[in-house]
Amino acid sequence: MPEIRKDPVFGRWVIVASDRSLRPNEFRNLERGIQEPSDCAFCPGNESQTPPALHVIPQENKPGAWKIRAVQNKYPALISNEPTLESADGIYHKMNGAGLHEVVIETPSHFQQMEDMDARHIKEVFEVYVSRINEMKKEAGIKYVMVFKNHGRNAGATLVHPHSQIIGMPMVPIRVVQEIDGAENYFMERNKCVFCDIADEERKTGKRIVGENREFMALEPYASRFSFETWIIPKQHSCHFETTSPESAGYLASIVKEILGKLRRSLEDLSYNLVIHTMPVHDPAVKHYHWHIEIMPKLSFVAGFEWGTGFYINAVSPEDAAHTLNSGKKYGN
Amino acid sequence: MPEIRKDPVFGRWVIVASDRSLRPNEFRNLERGIQEPSDCAFCPGNESQTPPALHVIPQENKPGAWKIRAVQNKYPALISNEPTLESADGIYHKMNGAGLHEVVIETPSHFQQMEDMDARHIKEVFEVYVSRINEMKKEAGIKYVMVFKNHGRNAGATLVHPHSQIIGMPMVPIRVVQEIDGAENYFMERNKCVFCDIADEERKTGKRIVGENREFMALEPYASRFSFETWIIPKQHSCHFETTSPESAGYLASIVKEILGKLRRSLEDLSYNLVIHTMPVHDPAVKHYHWHIEIMPKLSFVAGFEWGTGFYINAVSPEDAAHTLNSGKKYGN
Repeated sequence: MPEIRKDPVFGRWVIVASDRSLRPNEFRNLERGIQEPSDCAFCPGNESQTPPALHVIPQENKPGAWKIRAVQNKYPALISNEPTLESADGIYHKMNGAGLHEVVIETPSHFQQMEDMDARHIKEVFEVYVSRINEMKKEAGIKYVMVFKNHGRNAGATLVHPHSQIIGMPMVPIRVVQEIDGAENYFMERNKCVFCDIADEERKTGKRIVGENREFMALEPYASRFSFETWIIPKQHSCHFETTSPESAGYLASIVKEILGKLRRSLEDLSYNLVIHTMPVHDPAVKHYHWHIEIMPKLSFVAGFEWGTGFYINAVSPEDAAHTLNSGKKYGN
Repeated sequence: MPEIRKDPVFGRWVIVASDRSLRPNEFRNLERGIQEPSDCAFCPGNESQTPPALHVIPQENKPGAWKIRAVQNKYPALISNEPTLESADGIYHKMNGAGLHEVVIETPSHFQQMEDMDARHIKEVFEVYVSRINEMKKEAGIKYVMVFKNHGRNAGATLVHPHSQIIGMPMVPIRVVQEIDGAENYFMERNKCVFCDIADEERKTGKRIVGENREFMALEPYASRFSFETWIIPKQHSCHFETTSPESAGYLASIVKEILGKLRRSLEDLSYNLVIHTMPVHDPAVKHYHWHIEIMPKLSFVAGFEWGTGFYINAVSPEDAAHTLNSGKKYGN
């Protein structure tokens, strides 16, 4: 049973999920970085290797076949159907690991990357996220839902088949609290949403913009922690990702396809983490916080020191990154 | 010239140091992960390839030979002799990259790891840190000095020859501010230093202790973010690492040697970041904060998702990690 433990200094919660520790042989297979489609639990024909589907988008022209499948994670970081109990453990505090952990299998095709899907398909992936968040929200005790995608070994992915993960948790992660607090402080000082202000400022200078359509803007943030870090921001103020309309999801899909394509063209062996930053599911809409997507490429040669220290050194300025992405050139050539 | 940029949401400072971006060919060499001692700028005979030495510990029995050498970093993240100026950049804020960035070459031997040095040698490495911090402290504008060591490719090291880095910076990193604030909150609630309290609690249960001597305790922290994360805490309350006496440095060296040896025995292909957490250099001693060392092993198969999200899932409980380290067994066997 996973346990959620609170760090007594920072107040941050850490999920200790020993059941997730795979056996060493599996690690060695993963070291090779690729598995055969025939062995892949996410490929068509192997559906019995995953827990039953929670949500299925069928293929249009192939009766019985699926296009997108959401299932429970087989090695969950959190487990549902448990009431959330906080308890003392000596001077420390812990919670039982009550929560939900799902996997969205984005395509039946083992090697099809998100940027190679058509925009309509990507739109449906985002609509599955919206739908699963709205389902998780109904479960007792769920306070925050995090949607993320790890792609490539340097980003911590252990499976090749394109997939994303959704975790519903009984507390709001400290970094989310800090982000919302930071945005609130900005609002109190300037009476403007910091993300709306960023979008306005970037439009003025143009030098960090890497994509824009009717509803979204993509930019290399001013204080990028990672080389080629890219944010996708809705142009209309909006707090909760899960309120995204099907029409907006279409514009989102189109900019995500464009940006992942640009990153793929400019960076060799692209690995990235994509995280949706959004409000806690039960909090009301506010003027100071604005949902957005952060894509953090993990260049294989970049130092990992920043991990866990909060201290970042970035060797590629966001202006240079934007210039490279917009030129369609390979980085470093 | 490096630039320090402030994230408008979190208030965190990021160093954008484009000069540090090495050329692609060098990256590819580094990809191979090992360079020949003859090409290594840190090996004896190649001293002219580094900036001049700032501090040298000579070898006892070999006149003219060095044992430890501190030099300026050839690719500095921050550059000295510049006054620190904060300025607006549209809606953002930046500082020029005024500061100091040094490298401590820990041994003349290309392949000798810290745990293989004798304890007296390690003690001298720590004394060099103390001495360099006390020197940096005298420079105008330096508010915080961070000492860290990246070992192994998974931890972001780009050079094989054992070395550590010292960065003197014109601001206190946000994570340090948060750590000291968290410790102060704990003190206000319980009238005890949280780190002293952790040491007492761990002594009571014993299950997370991995080493102890007269002056230091080593433990797997209760809410470990990383598998086999290990902290080394002085048993006497102390805020500033740079006040460590030569006698204490001896005890510190001995426990560091023991712990790195245990990690090496239990983990294959050990990569780690070692960071000294200490008070800002000009802040007075306080009752609520306690310097310590955090060692974060980077197991090659652990997800990198936590990087930059603050959300941690740890697949090895600290109790299991302590048991493995104390048994001297290989993890996973």
